[in-house]
Amino acid sequence: MAFVTNNSSKSRNTYVRKFSDLGFEHIEKSAIYPTCYSAALVIKEQLKIPPQSKVWVFGDEGIEQELKECGYIPCGGSDPSLDSEWDPDSPILKIDQEVKAVVVGSTKKLNYMRLATTVQYLLVDEKSIPFIGANIDTTYPGPKGMILPAGGPMVNLMSYTCGRDFINVGKPSGLLLNTILQDQKFDRERTLMVGDTMYTDIKFGNDGKLGGKNGGTLLVLSGGSKLGDLKNIEDKSTEPQYYIESLGHLFDLLK
Amino acid sequence: MAFVTNNSSKSRNTYVRKFSDLGFEHIEKSAIYPTCYSAALVIKEQLKIPPQSKVWVFGDEGIEQELKECGYIPCGGSDPSLDSEWDPDSPILKIDQEVKAVVVGSTKKLNYMRLATTVQYLLVDEKSIPFIGANIDTTYPGPKGMILPAGGPMVNLMSYTCGRDFINVGKPSGLLLNTILQDQKFDRERTLMVGDTMYTDIKFGNDGKLGGKNGGTLLVLSGGSKLGDLKNIEDKSTEPQYYIESLGHLFDLLK
Repeated sequence: MAFVTNNSSKSRNTYVRKFSDLGFEHIEKSAIYPTCYSAALVIKEQLKIPPQSKVWVFGDEGIEQELKECGYIPCGGSDPSLDSEWDPDSPILKIDQEVKAVVVGSTKKLNYMRLATTVQYLLVDEKSIPFIGANIDTTYPGPKGMILPAGGPMVNLMSYTCGRDFINVGKPSGLLLNTILQDQKFDRERTLMVGDTMYTDIKFGNDGKLGGKNGGTLLVLSGGSKLGDLKNIEDKSTEPQYYIESLGHLFDLLK
Repeated sequence: MAFVTNNSSKSRNTYVRKFSDLGFEHIEKSAIYPTCYSAALVIKEQLKIPPQSKVWVFGDEGIEQELKECGYIPCGGSDPSLDSEWDPDSPILKIDQEVKAVVVGSTKKLNYMRLATTVQYLLVDEKSIPFIGANIDTTYPGPKGMILPAGGPMVNLMSYTCGRDFINVGKPSGLLLNTILQDQKFDRERTLMVGDTMYTDIKFGNDGKLGGKNGGTLLVLSGGSKLGDLKNIEDKSTEPQYYIESLGHLFDLLK
């Protein structure tokens, strides 16, 4: 079993502690794939950016932690000089030539200083610095029935402002799926993707041909996608092979 | 002569003072069209939203001032409870049923509280509250050669997050042009649009058929669009009839 989340805010170490706090003691770091980790993996293994390079971060601490574990030097991110009101004279606006990639993920620390500084790196040298987007999720269910902005709006904000596309390292990226299958030694034909959102989770499994001819996607209706969404599917790649009301029902069936 | 700007941050009164400070004493309020004003005009004259209605604002004080002058009650905007860190328990997140429209414009006060509260209004009642976007400009030239995010990214951020389109009240909106021609009693065939950006200013004049058969668009090369952009025009509606290096050259020619 592996856990894959498009939330880039928390590192694998943080998730291990979170699982442990919830009473799941035996979930290992090596089975957890938040997009902060997949971003660092892609920078290292696909883009082959040399260790000790600087990577500019727009997003939360998880990204900084995973970059450090992969041997990179994060900058931007949680730097306190980015917390201030807009200041065009701030030294952080001066391009650092050692920055070799930009990672954008979800954050609630969105402000104009972060937007403007990140844009400088995405535009410099004819937009040649690799731009990694940690997810495409537009919204997530918040407290009291609220629908709240997720990481997709942050990635799209940068993409729109700079007029350039990004490398998606979250679900439904095939790059991520192949890394997980290889890491975990999962058999593609015998793997089932369980998730609550059709355009990310289910598409991830379908595009990756999980489950072979039987189909390897199970939608859980307790999150992003609702029963109504199943009746109005325009893109076949988002259609789950199976669906179930909640994860609890799955445990009952497995008993 | 009329002045049309996609900057929604400053009200007409503020521009009158700014012109006066620059030594232009005789420019009247009635000749100035910032998008904060056109947003209020569209709400009143096109959408016919009753006076004394509340209008939710994501943007700067100019929008609030022009809404007040048109008889509306702005909310959101510069409300200090929006300056804080994200707080899902903040009372400002509770939908106010008296809000009848949402205006989004440029601002440097971008933060998650403002993003999340605005999204609540854009999603409520099956996305039925009118959504007015004050401009589509992606960037503007900042100090020290920097390229900085303009209001378009703010409007697009809301549009993307909520999966809905907006009413554009800035250039190149035909709605705005017709209002100006009527207000100022300009003859469409004898009107020239002078501007520095092809996809907003020049398109505004071309789409509006200014200048009749002669064409009524003059690009000034000292701002958003450069000489190189003239050599690579994909969309004919953005092609100026005339171009000139700077406004100073125009004054020389008129002498």
